[in-house]
Amino acid sequence: MTRPGRLTRRRLAASALLAPGAAAAERLEVPPGMREQGAPLDATSYGLPAPTEQGVRRRSRPGREYQPILGTAGSIVTPLGDLDGIVTPNGLHFIRCHAGIPAIAPEQHRLLVHGLVERPLVFSMDQLRRFPTVSRLHFLECSGNSPLYRTARIRPDWTAQDTHGLLSCAEWTGLRLADLLAEVGVRPEARWMLAEGADAAGMTRSIPVAKALDDAMLCWAQNGEALRPEQGYPLRLFLPGYEGNTNVKWLRRLKLAAEPFMTREETSRYTGLLPDGTARQFNFTMHVKSVITRPSGGQSMGAPGFREISGIAWSGFGAIRRVEVSVDGGATWRDAALQDPVLPKCLTRFRLPWQWDGQPALLASRATDETGAVQPSREALLAEVGEWFTYHYNAILAWKVTENGTVQLAV
Amino acid sequence: MTRPGRLTRRRLAASALLAPGAAAAERLEVPPGMREQGAPLDATSYGLPAPTEQGVRRRSRPGREYQPILGTAGSIVTPLGDLDGIVTPNGLHFIRCHAGIPAIAPEQHRLLVHGLVERPLVFSMDQLRRFPTVSRLHFLECSGNSPLYRTARIRPDWTAQDTHGLLSCAEWTGLRLADLLAEVGVRPEARWMLAEGADAAGMTRSIPVAKALDDAMLCWAQNGEALRPEQGYPLRLFLPGYEGNTNVKWLRRLKLAAEPFMTREETSRYTGLLPDGTARQFNFTMHVKSVITRPSGGQSMGAPGFREISGIAWSGFGAIRRVEVSVDGGATWRDAALQDPVLPKCLTRFRLPWQWDGQPALLASRATDETGAVQPSREALLAEVGEWFTYHYNAILAWKVTENGTVQLAV
Repeated sequence: MTRPGRLTRRRLAASALLAPGAAAAERLEVPPGMREQGAPLDATSYGLPAPTEQGVRRRSRPGREYQPILGTAGSIVTPLGDLDGIVTPNGLHFIRCHAGIPAIAPEQHRLLVHGLVERPLVFSMDQLRRFPTVSRLHFLECSGNSPLYRTARIRPDWTAQDTHGLLSCAEWTGLRLADLLAEVGVRPEARWMLAEGADAAGMTRSIPVAKALDDAMLCWAQNGEALRPEQGYPLRLFLPGYEGNTNVKWLRRLKLAAEPFMTREETSRYTGLLPDGTARQFNFTMHVKSVITRPSGGQSMGAPGFREISGIAWSGFGAIRRVEVSVDGGATWRDAALQDPVLPKCLTRFRLPWQWDGQPALLASRATDETGAVQPSREALLAEVGEWFTYHYNAILAWKVTENGTVQLAV
Repeated sequence: MTRPGRLTRRRLAASALLAPGAAAAERLEVPPGMREQGAPLDATSYGLPAPTEQGVRRRSRPGREYQPILGTAGSIVTPLGDLDGIVTPNGLHFIRCHAGIPAIAPEQHRLLVHGLVERPLVFSMDQLRRFPTVSRLHFLECSGNSPLYRTARIRPDWTAQDTHGLLSCAEWTGLRLADLLAEVGVRPEARWMLAEGADAAGMTRSIPVAKALDDAMLCWAQNGEALRPEQGYPLRLFLPGYEGNTNVKWLRRLKLAAEPFMTREETSRYTGLLPDGTARQFNFTMHVKSVITRPSGGQSMGAPGFREISGIAWSGFGAIRRVEVSVDGGATWRDAALQDPVLPKCLTRFRLPWQWDGQPALLASRATDETGAVQPSREALLAEVGEWFTYHYNAILAWKVTENGTVQLAV
C-alpha cells in the first residue's frame, strides 16, 4: 500500500535536531526509586493507571454537566487529546446511557429472538458463547459526537475530548449475528429487526436485516475481557460503522419484521432535522471524519522546533485511504503517513512531521475513505444539512496555534 | 492470504444446531433492571470491570505465592483462559519485577545516552515526546513463561493462566530508538547497548545495536494511555519479539559499547543451562508458540455438541503463518482459521469448529511462523535442551478433556 508522507530518515535529517533542548551530560542523579525496594505486586486488584495520570479521565462535555430532566441519561467522553495509537482502554471508553447502567447477572440474562422467524428461541449467555466467535477492531461513535453545528455555542477552549470524545475504539469479540439468525430461520418477508436493551429506557432501534446478515455481531468482550457494565454487560449488539445508539447494550430481544418499528429513539431522537422542516431518518452509517489530537485544544506547544502532528481518522463505510494535513488553515495540504494496520471501520492513526517556527498556525486534517468520500468543509456541511441537524457532524476541524503557543478550537 | 480452515456457512450447517439447548419461547420475564433507573455515569473514576468478573484477575503462579528471599521480586500472570481476541487490557497485563514497582514523577525522569556516541545527551520526557512516534501491536512474553521443563513439578490442575500467563499483548506507542540514536551519533565500533532501569534492582541488560537500530522503541504508552507503573512508567525499552526482561522498564540509561556488559541478569539469570553443563547466553528472541485457551485447564465442557476450539499463537521471529489443531493428542491435525489482522510479533487468535461427542479427548495446537519454524513436541524440545534449561519453553501443549467434561493439563 502507498504510504504518502511516510517519515524518512532523510526527511528527518533535513529537519535538523528533533530534541533541541536535550542536555549534554555524562552523569545522572540516582533517583530515590533506586535506593529502596519498590511497591510489591498486587495479585488481588484490577490494575489502575499511575496516580500522576489522574487528569486522564472521562468527563461530561461542557454545558452537559447537569441534566435534571434526563435523570440518569447522559454521556461522558474519552480524553482523545491524551491518548496515542488507536486502542481506547476500557476504563476510558466513552459512555452514553439513556437510563443509567443496569446491574445484570450473566447467568440470569436471556436473549429472545422472535417475530418473522421459523423457530423463535431464547438463548442463555452459555448458549450464545458456544457459537463460533469473531474478534474485530472497530471504532464506536455516538451520532451526536462533535456538537459543532450551532456556531453560537462553540467555545474556543474546547478540547478534542469535548469536540470528538464520544468516540472510542476497541477489539470486540462475540458471535456473528448471521449465525444466530440462521439458527432461528429468518422468513423471506423480514426486512427489519428490532433490537431491545434490558435497561430502564427499554432502548430500542430498528435495524435493516441486510446489516444484521452482513457484519453485525453480538458481543460479550471488549479488548479481550468481558464488556464493561456501561458497555452493555453481558451482551450488546455491535454494528460496525453504524451510529453508537444502534449498537444496543444489555441486549435482550431481537424481533424480525417487514417494516421498521418507529420507536421513540428513531422518531423523536436520532433523526436529522433538515432546513426544509423534514427529517432524515435511519441515517445509520457514520461518515468519513478525522481530528488532530496532538497538538489539540488546551495543549501547549512548548519551544519552537520539531513537532509531530498526529491524529485519528475513521469512516463507517470502510477503511481510511488518505489523510491530508494543513498548517495554514487549508490553503495548502500535505499527505500524512497512515500507521499500520489500516483496518475497515476502525480508527487509523495519522502523523505528519512539522517544523514549528513559533508563529501562529491553523492546523486541520481532511480524511478520505475507501469509497472516495472526502471529509467536507464546515461551510459545505452546513449548506447541506443546516445548523439544526444535530447528528453526524463530520466537517474538517481546525486548531489554532496562538502567538503564546497555546492551542484553541478554531472550527 | 490463504485462510486454511476458515469456518464456512456450509461447514456450520453440516455441524447441525450450534446451540442445542436454546428454548423455544415467545415470552421473557421483565428483568429488575428495566423497572428502575440504572446507576449514574461516574465522570470522576477510572472505569472498572463488572463486580461479577472479579474472578478474572492476575495472580501468582502455583508455588510462587511466597518468595521471602526475593523480597518484592516476583510475577503475576494474565488470565488467558478468560480472555478473547488478542488485546490484553492494561489492568490484566502480566507483571514481572525484580525489586518492586518504583513511583516515578514523569517530570523528574531523565534518560542518559552515552558511551560510544558522538554526543552524549540527557533527555527529559517532554523532549522524548517530541520525536516522531510509532504505534504497534506486539506481544510481550517473559522468557520464563511456561514452567514445564521439569516433569515432576507439573500438576494436572494448572490452567492456561498458570502455564502461559507470563504473556500479554498490547498496542505500544513511543519513538523509534533508531531516531534517538541518530541524534547522539553511534560510533562505528559500538556493537552492544546497555539498558538500565530506574528500579532498585538497577535492572540491566546488553542489547545488540543491530536490534536497537531495527525495530526497537522507547515507549510511553500501552493501549493508548500512559504506561502502567508496573510496566515501566514513564518510559520503557520495547524490543519486539525479544524476551520480556530485555524490555527494560523505568528506562534511565543507554550506554553504547563494543562488547556486552555481562550483567547479573545475563550471567546468573536468563541464560539456559544445557545438558553438557554449558549455558546458552543472549538467547533473545521468543520462539514460535501457541496455546488453546478455550477449552483449557480448569474449564468445563458443558453438554456435548458444538464447541469452538480457540487459542493464541505468536513468534518473536515474525508473523504466524499456520496453526494446526488436534483433538486426538497429535494423531491427526486440522488447520485452524487465523483471525485478521495477522501481525508480526503479535498474538494471532486461531479457531477451529468442533463437534464434541462427549467422549474424552486430547486437544493440542501446533504453530508455524513465517520463517517456517514449527512448534516442537515436548520430547524434541527436552532432547535438545534438557530439563534444566528453564527459559524459552515453547513445546506443543495438550489439554485433556475427561469423561466428566472437566479439562486438565496433560502436557
